[in-house]
Amino acid sequence: MKYSVDWIDDHVRMLDQRLLPHEEQYLDLTTSDEVAEAICNMTVRGAPAIGVAAAYGVVLAAQGAPETERETAVRRALDVLGQTRPTAVNLFASLRRMNRVLDECPGEGLLDALTREALSIHQEEIEASQHISKAGASLIPHGATVLTHCNAGMIATAAHGTAIGIILEAHRQGKIRLIIVSETRPLLQGARLTAWELVRAGAPATLICDSMVGHVMSRGHIDCVVVGADRIASNGDVANKIGTYSIAVLARAHHIPFYVAAPYSTIDTSIRDGDSIEIEQRNATEVVELSGQRVAADGVQVYNPAFDVTPHHLVTAIISERGILKAPFRRGLKTLAGNPGGRRK
Amino acid sequence: MKYSVDWIDDHVRMLDQRLLPHEEQYLDLTTSDEVAEAICNMTVRGAPAIGVAAAYGVVLAAQGAPETERETAVRRALDVLGQTRPTAVNLFASLRRMNRVLDECPGEGLLDALTREALSIHQEEIEASQHISKAGASLIPHGATVLTHCNAGMIATAAHGTAIGIILEAHRQGKIRLIIVSETRPLLQGARLTAWELVRAGAPATLICDSMVGHVMSRGHIDCVVVGADRIASNGDVANKIGTYSIAVLARAHHIPFYVAAPYSTIDTSIRDGDSIEIEQRNATEVVELSGQRVAADGVQVYNPAFDVTPHHLVTAIISERGILKAPFRRGLKTLAGNPGGRRK
Repeated sequence: MKYSVDWIDDHVRMLDQRLLPHEEQYLDLTTSDEVAEAICNMTVRGAPAIGVAAAYGVVLAAQGAPETERETAVRRALDVLGQTRPTAVNLFASLRRMNRVLDECPGEGLLDALTREALSIHQEEIEASQHISKAGASLIPHGATVLTHCNAGMIATAAHGTAIGIILEAHRQGKIRLIIVSETRPLLQGARLTAWELVRAGAPATLICDSMVGHVMSRGHIDCVVVGADRIASNGDVANKIGTYSIAVLARAHHIPFYVAAPYSTIDTSIRDGDSIEIEQRNATEVVELSGQRVAADGVQVYNPAFDVTPHHLVTAIISERGILKAPFRRGLKTLAGNPGGRRK
Repeated sequence: MKYSVDWIDDHVRMLDQRLLPHEEQYLDLTTSDEVAEAICNMTVRGAPAIGVAAAYGVVLAAQGAPETERETAVRRALDVLGQTRPTAVNLFASLRRMNRVLDECPGEGLLDALTREALSIHQEEIEASQHISKAGASLIPHGATVLTHCNAGMIATAAHGTAIGIILEAHRQGKIRLIIVSETRPLLQGARLTAWELVRAGAPATLICDSMVGHVMSRGHIDCVVVGADRIASNGDVANKIGTYSIAVLARAHHIPFYVAAPYSTIDTSIRDGDSIEIEQRNATEVVELSGQRVAADGVQVYNPAFDVTPHHLVTAIISERGILKAPFRRGLKTLAGNPGGRRK
């Protein structure tokens, strides 16, 4: 298995991220409803990986329906998949592309056209993450200690990873002294997923609790922060895993560069700024239970936003497959939008 | 049972804080070694409560030895108890007072003198926390949402609490809209202990993960932060539970007052600033295991400091039983030191 989400002959194979780091188990999904469920319950997570999985989900819907009912089945799948998670933009970008294929190629060529488009979406993610890794590694100084939050790795992207792609590329170049991984409560993607990927790649990783970030920075132990993104607005505001914003404020207070790595598909040119990004609220259980056991006192209320928004003025650079972008982001992102093939430094 | 640590006839009764919030169980300890062990394994935690427990531990040592060996037993207990936890200053202040009694009253009156001194230390904590609660509540605006970290409550102080004492006093005065409790990884004192105390007191509490503090502040949802302290240096630098420093930086970035509540015994006039405060490193297990199950990937390193230091320039005011102190702290703390009876606004 090369990627965390893949198309195998006639179905989707997906790494069950919920079982990591204890078990590396792959699920074979054959219906679009199974894919929608896997997105909801976070079997697959990470904005780019969700986008790829959703595209394959649409193919499964087309494949599972008799030709006369194919269009209806695809429309229903687009609808169901679009309601799985509200924050990541890649999901919607991916479904828009699949919807366009439906509009342009109705009839007997539809299944083939949808399959080709889904494979393209995936291939583009793979190439994007390769470009991002190379471009971003150029920003990492020699002997660096880098902090990353949540998981923007191989498993989050169905490719080589964005933030972790950069860190591992810098590691291959011999530049990394240490990677500090914040555990990323409530679902511990840092402790479970990022630590797993880094240890597996032979990279030196140290786990801390999210609350320790400021202390570690104050001791002069961090040279830069590299995180992924779930959605980036036209002005450079970044929605990413809850906790990212706190880290960005702390990085600024300690004069530490704060880099955001994301495929261009993560940039949502339809929204002016981060205020328009819907923040998904998740179940209280994620906070009050650990390993299935209740830890919090009974009767306490819970607030559990899955993401936060980091305003563009705290972002040092955005690294996409189209190059490294520094402030002012609004103008830069506009230029990139008109320059899809180009590389920009 | 009135307090989390108490002297009952001839022994120490102690709330086992490790079992909260699920079980409210009290342990009867009859030797100083049991008390030392209870401090190490965090059966009792919270700087003032540790100080009270240690004083009673010394009494147990005196009581358990024949009169001829009493002095030796007390000296050994002072030594063993002094090695339990390095950061909280109350422990050392308490042991110094017990040591002075040993020096001043050797011989047959020793046991009585030690018992009186331990009871005094406890009584002073109780009175201090009452004064702190009243003074601090005056700083809380009407309709306030207050954030607190870790647990500086009844159970941490063997009295009415410092930070939580203030919050509950403000609640009694009808000023509190909501209390935001950060869960306080790794040991979740916020989720387990503070939430338990607040719910028990009928106060409105909402639990968040530590990583959510910045996001909640950015939404304008916090009017002030109130935390306790494990040690305060002469210049006002504050050592407290890991995560406090990050919250102080975030509070400053959002123009939110950051209050530290602590009995005067927490102030260590022997140290110039926070750099001299030893930060206890705790076991990796606390980070990689949850409810006894390993959650983090195998092979990852762990950094687990129990405390951090918040520099005085991020502290809006220090609230002790001697009054409310604002910057410049060095001069103010010196004045307070010479004014033990006075109240200062």
